[in-house]
Order: sequence, then C-alpha cells, then structure tokens
Amino acid sequence: MRTEVVAIGTELLLGQITDTNSSWIGEQLALVGIDSYFQTKVGDNLDRVVAAISLALDREDAVICCGGLGPTQDDLTREAIAAVMGVPLETDPDMERHIAAMFGGRSRPMPQNNLRQAQRPVGATFIAQQPGTAPGLVCPLEWTGPDGTTSSKVIYAVPGVPWEMKEMITGTVLPDLQARAGITAVISSRTLRTWGESESGLAETLADRIDSLDVSGNPTLAFLASGMEGLKVRITAKGATADEVQSILAAEEAVVRDLLGPLVFGVDDDTMESVVLEMLVERGLSLGVAESLTGGMVGSRLCGIAGASRVFRGSIVSYASEVKFDLLDVPEGPVITEVAAVAMAIGARDRLSADVGISATGVAGPDSAEGHKPGTVCIAVVIGDPDDGGTVASTTMLLPGRRNQIREFTVISLLGLLRRELLALADGAVIAGGGTWADRAPTSGTESATASVSNAAASVWGRAPATTTDDGTT
Amino acid sequence: MRTEVVAIGTELLLGQITDTNSSWIGEQLALVGIDSYFQTKVGDNLDRVVAAISLALDREDAVICCGGLGPTQDDLTREAIAAVMGVPLETDPDMERHIAAMFGGRSRPMPQNNLRQAQRPVGATFIAQQPGTAPGLVCPLEWTGPDGTTSSKVIYAVPGVPWEMKEMITGTVLPDLQARAGITAVISSRTLRTWGESESGLAETLADRIDSLDVSGNPTLAFLASGMEGLKVRITAKGATADEVQSILAAEEAVVRDLLGPLVFGVDDDTMESVVLEMLVERGLSLGVAESLTGGMVGSRLCGIAGASRVFRGSIVSYASEVKFDLLDVPEGPVITEVAAVAMAIGARDRLSADVGISATGVAGPDSAEGHKPGTVCIAVVIGDPDDGGTVASTTMLLPGRRNQIREFTVISLLGLLRRELLALADGAVIAGGGTWADRAPTSGTESATASVSNAAASVWGRAPATTTDDGTT
Repeated sequence: MRTEVVAIGTELLLGQITDTNSSWIGEQLALVGIDSYFQTKVGDNLDRVVAAISLALDREDAVICCGGLGPTQDDLTREAIAAVMGVPLETDPDMERHIAAMFGGRSRPMPQNNLRQAQRPVGATFIAQQPGTAPGLVCPLEWTGPDGTTSSKVIYAVPGVPWEMKEMITGTVLPDLQARAGITAVISSRTLRTWGESESGLAETLADRIDSLDVSGNPTLAFLASGMEGLKVRITAKGATADEVQSILAAEEAVVRDLLGPLVFGVDDDTMESVVLEMLVERGLSLGVAESLTGGMVGSRLCGIAGASRVFRGSIVSYASEVKFDLLDVPEGPVITEVAAVAMAIGARDRLSADVGISATGVAGPDSAEGHKPGTVCIAVVIGDPDDGGTVASTTMLLPGRRNQIREFTVISLLGLLRRELLALADGAVIAGGGTWADRAPTSGTESATASVSNAAASVWGRAPATTTDDGTT
Repeated sequence: MRTEVVAIGTELLLGQITDTNSSWIGEQLALVGIDSYFQTKVGDNLDRVVAAISLALDREDAVICCGGLGPTQDDLTREAIAAVMGVPLETDPDMERHIAAMFGGRSRPMPQNNLRQAQRPVGATFIAQQPGTAPGLVCPLEWTGPDGTTSSKVIYAVPGVPWEMKEMITGTVLPDLQARAGITAVISSRTLRTWGESESGLAETLADRIDSLDVSGNPTLAFLASGMEGLKVRITAKGATADEVQSILAAEEAVVRDLLGPLVFGVDDDTMESVVLEMLVERGLSLGVAESLTGGMVGSRLCGIAGASRVFRGSIVSYASEVKFDLLDVPEGPVITEVAAVAMAIGARDRLSADVGISATGVAGPDSAEGHKPGTVCIAVVIGDPDDGGTVASTTMLLPGRRNQIREFTVISLLGLLRRELLALADGAVIAGGGTWADRAPTSGTESATASVSNAAASVWGRAPATTTDDGTT
C-alpha cells in the first residue's frame, strides 16, 4: 500500500505559503507503516490537478489531495476528482443544510458560494469529521493504469487549513488506509527529548542497543536535532494490538532512559519550559529570571505555556550593563562572567520576590564583546538562599550558530541547567508550598552553596556547528 | 519557458524537515517571469529520482534539483542526473583540489567521502558560486519527450542547505534560465509592510488603484497577511531594463504610500522592530519596556536586531501582579486597564533610565481574567515626561486568535503604537542626543500629555479572525 500526497494551490507554487501539510501527512503515513515515494504540488488549474491526481493513481494505490476545497471558483479539487472518476458532481441536501446551519450558528449570512462545498462526486462519501465548513471526501474508484490492468484505488480530499486537515487525516484517512491495506499491525511511536549531549554522543551511547535492535527490527530508534526543542530520540514499535505496542514502547523507553539518564528531559510534546514549570509547581517554588542576550526570550518561552503564572513571577531583561548594575546589583565590571551571571540570578530572585533565580549573559554577535567571541554565554541558577541550605550553579558555554541560534540555544541550556538543579535538589521529593525557604529546603541530594556544576550543560557543543538541523538538508 | 523544482531527500517525505526551499525557489521563478506548474518531492532512491527528473523533463523545459549533493552514499543527485543524461560521472581535478583546500583552511581533516562532491556528469559545468563544500551543477541536454520530439533542455542541481541554495539560484540559475528563455524583460518586486488596517480595509482603500492597474497589468498589487510581520502589499513590475523597473516600482510605491499614509511602516525586509529601533536611534531616544502577557517577547524581538543595544535598555517582565505593584509602581487594583498600562510604561521608563517607556498588559488566555475575555489587551507609550512636554498614549484592543497569536499581535501592535507616537512627535525632525529630556522635546507636532490615541491601532481587528494567513490555505 503506497500513498501520494498532492497539495493543491497556486499560492504553494508561488511560495506565498509554505506547504507544511504534506510534511505532516508524510510523517503520519510513515508512522502507521504506509510508504510514500513522491509528493506533488500543483496550482489551481483543472487540467493540471487532474493530471497530477491521475499520475499519482498510476504509480500509487491511494492519493491524498490537500487543499482546493474552499467555496470559491478557484477551489477545483471536487471538480478534478469527479473528472478523474468519470462521474458528475451532485449536491448533497443534508450537507447543504448542515453548512447553512453552521453559518446560522455564527449569525453570519452564508455566501451562496459556500453551497459549492455541499457537492461531491457521485460514489464519494463525506469524511465524518468536519471542523470547518469544508467537508472532506473519500472517493473509491476502479483505476486502469498505464499497463492496462485495473485495480481498486482511493482518492481522499482534505482542506488545506492545517487543524481541519489534521482532524480528518487522524480520524478517517489513516484508519481507512490501514483497513484497505489490510494492516492489522498497529504502529506507534514515542519521542524522548534530550539535552546536554551531541547527536554523535547520543549515537555512541546507544550504539550497542541500536545494533541489538537491528536484529529484530522492532522497535527502532532514530535521532533528530531540533534546535531549541532539544535533540529527539524517536522509538517506533509495531505490534498486533495497541496494548502490545504500548508495552513495547514503554519497555524500550525504560531501556533508553537507563542508558541516557538525566539527559532525557521529556516525552513527545513536552518542552524544556513545560517540564521545568511543572517541576517548580510540584516543588512549590516560584521563579524569577534575569536575561541579557536573550532579551526576554526565556520569559517569553515560559509564558507560552498556559498556567505559567502559577510559578513564573517575571523577568528582568537587563540588556544595558547599567541596568544590571542598578536594578540587579551586579558588581560594576565585566558582565560576561559567571560572577555576573550569579549576581544577576540573585538579583532576579530578590527583585521578583521569587524562590529561584536564573540568568544568562553573553555575546550573541555579530561583534565580539569584552574580548569574548559570539556564542560565549554564562548562565547561572540560584535556588533559595545559598547561605541557608540553598544552591548556586553556573557554567560558561561556547554556543555555535549565528545571533538568533545562539540566543535560542541559550534559552534551552539555561532551562536545562535549572532542571538539573531541581533534580539534584529534590531527588524525587515533593516540597509543599508555604513557610520560609528554610522550611522547604530539601534534606538530601542538594549541592552545597557556590558549587559550580560540571560542564555537562556545555558538552552538547562538542559537535561541529554544521550538524544538520530542522532547517536544512545537504 | 517552464521550470519544475524537484526536491530530493527521504527526510522531506517523512516530514522530518519541511521543504521551504521549493517555496522560496517558486517565488523567485515567479518574480522573474518563469512559470512553474508542478513541484515534486522524492526520496533518496536512485530509480525514483531518475523517474522524477525524467517526468519533469517530459512536461517542462528545465528542472531544478534541490538536495542530494552531500558527500554520503545517500546523496544520489549526481548519479541520477548522469543516468538521465546517459553519460558517466567524471572527477574534476580542480574541484578536488578546491574542496581539499576548503578543509585545509578549516584545519579539519577531509573525509574521503567529500571527494564524491568533485564529480560531475560529462557535459555538465559547476555553478560559479560555492559557499559550502557542495558544488552546484548546470547540465544541458537533448531530451526526447513522450511525443518523440527532441529539444534542448537543462537540469540544474543545487544543495539543500538554504543559504548555499539561495546564493546559487540568485547568482547562476535565474540568470541562466532567463537567458535560455530569451527573457529580456526584467521583473522585480517591492513589498510595503503595513499595520493598523485589515486586509479587506486595505483592499477597499486601494480598489480604484487596482482597477486602473488591471488595464495595463503592469505593475500589479497583491496582499498577504503575515501575522507578526504585518500585512504586506507587494508591487511587481516588468520593464526592459533594471532602471526602468526600479522607476516603475518607485512611482507605484509613491502612489500606494499616498493612499495608505502612515499605515506603511516598512519596505521589503524591514520589520516593525527594526523600524522603531532606527527611529529611536535617529531621535537619540532610549527605550524601556514593561510587559506582562507577552512575557518578554517584545524585548526578545527587539534584541533579534543586531545593534539594538544602541537604544534598547531592557524590559521588565511583570507577569505577576505584585511585580507590577512593587517594581513598576502600578497602583494596586485591576491590572488589565489603560491606567495600569500607562503606569507600567512610566515605571519601565524610570526603572530602566530610558527616555521612552512602552507597555502591554492583558489576557492571553485560555482563561478570562478580571472579567475580560482572552484577547483583551491594553498598551501604552510614554515619551519623556508628560508634565514637561512629553506625551502619553494608550489604547485597548480585542485581538483574535489563541494564546500565542494574541501575544504576537500584541507585540506588533505595541511597537506600531510607538511608531505612530514617534512620527507624531518628531514630524521629520531629528532630535540629537545629550542634555535633559526638556532639551530634546520637540517644538511642534506633539500630542498633549495624557491624550489617548484614536483607536487606529485596534482597527485592524475589524476583520473576522478566520482570515487566511501564512500558515494555511483552504
């Protein structure tokens, strides 16, 4: 069973919109074990859409058309599929009423054009999920290929609006494809997110495990460097039932976690910021930030998570040195030092009345500063009062990339250091809120005051800066 | 002359990397007047890459292959093109020396694999630009199509690394394509960025102009809503020479600016943050920010611009209400009000020792706060001392979208209000630095203290939230 995605829309060819839909669909197909050899983009031209769908049917078993289901005359996917099937379009009265009702519910008049969306090729059915006004289509057909043989194939049509498309792909297209393919096996994956080690370092640590998995081919492990989102290790497993697959995934996750230890900071959609926020909530600790080269990005990423207000007090973006001195009580002098970083963290903790202070100061470039080249960054984490059972940790890193990459790597590195410190602090113990800091101080596993962490946070930069990332491929 | 882009790489089909290269190339082709009817993605499989290139040659005059020029065994583009041309690969000794020298210059040992990159199909030439180790290729050939006729066509190959690809496309591929197409006309475009009016509002204002342009078809105008990057109006012009095109673009820009007035904040790569930073530098004014729901995003966007330190002092992210009261001297009480926003702006100006203070406070959601629904946002701009010739402006907006969209729209709206205030303040006059605020107060065009701006900044939200944006298409 092979499937081709045909993305439809002149704006895709003209580069006015980047086609992220095909990428997402390709990923979902791979995850359920359906191969995809080609993807095509075609403009809003009836003949060419018909040609693209026909070619895809010639070489694959199924075609997913994405886009061109809107209400305007430019939206030609319904017409094109009817032409490929050799059938007329018919208006479905139930769908007509349904679409009219959706407009009624929004107290907006329905343009007559929208009734075009109630049309379907004879023999096609609507997809059950319909989050917007555009209905999706399932269009089974008998197709005679270039070699003269006829076989049963299927065309799906989904809208180009990403969240509408995703609901239909997940709810109808993938299960239908699997049923047609006779795939009774269930395939699923789980992604472990890591930070603190390079891709080649991870590969080395997991080399023996990967070799032994290669024998059975189930589960499999794959790596993906994803910038500020961490370095991902994806486990993919196959089994007869969902339960079986989940138990394979859980067993493999345990093996990988055992090998990687605290490098693993999250699973699937976890981000470093969601993880540290949750850890702070569990421990009843509030957070204040002082940031320089990141300019507010640390705070902004934390606030991207709904509910950040439970622990996040705020951030002091001390871009000018005088703001560091005046507002954060950093001793006058060089500001790209661990001493300055620690002073900033203490200043943030105090000024923002927080339990925990974290900070970053460094050179984003393009120019050097204080004799340090771009990428030189000092970070610090202060938990509670170091003179009274609290901890201090700081480190200096040399980060790769240009200005904004350096700033992004600073954010995840700083939050990663905070995570390590919270882990060391609590060792699994949940500290309830209330009382003074001393009341909440952990009884074990704490680093002593002013200890500097080992350079684990920086070791990820052992790799060459040219490593392939999400934004390019050689 | 028609050209098809073939993007090569299994990671593109699997969705591990989104193919932004094809979008960019499609845009460049359109701008120079070369049509593109299809784009194809294909995995790292020799037979299928050969099939994709052959099909593209069957239906178009030229093919641009993107990706698969790296040094590894997976990089098959060179082999595939040689197979399509029916010629062997040969190693170019000059290129071999050149690549070895590049590694020598970086003091890194060259893996033997990299010598594969010195190979080219017999009859092909290397592209002059070579920013990385991967050379690009120009491969002219005689191609016999499905109808049996033979004609001269061309295959280009460029690497998948975006900045390497762009240099080769701009430097060699586009001029070569234009020369082969006999295109003597020059086509170019200029984008005006606007903020403060909806897409339909802009269209209405420009309707007469667009109608009159439709007669000649040169230049043309197009709109593109781009979120935090503003609402773009693109002017595209055609002419016999670059000078002629530039003068058509300049004339049309003047007409559009005349119709849109201060809605136009920038041209081409300008961003709202680069524009306001430049205006502040020109006027010798420093900036302090106080932000709540944006969590640091205002500061972070400003610091994304190299040289922000000339005027940007810092930002106080007062996420918790007590931080607003304690650190910014906001009067205790409700914080989603213009009164609180103005107090925050004054607090930022004072605490950060800046000439100008700006602020944003509001509800990002998903929950309501203080009885206001998500999207309710108050912003303020304070320039100098309102009691001594300075100005205050504030407004309340209801922004559409979910949490992060609301936060992003807040950033551009706040910086947009700052821009309006700076325009009103200076009326073209450049205020030199030095002296007290009073010395630098403008002598005309100033709004009086505590004036509230008209709701121009909010009027952009007259449109329905469902307007198509960069991230989706129906």
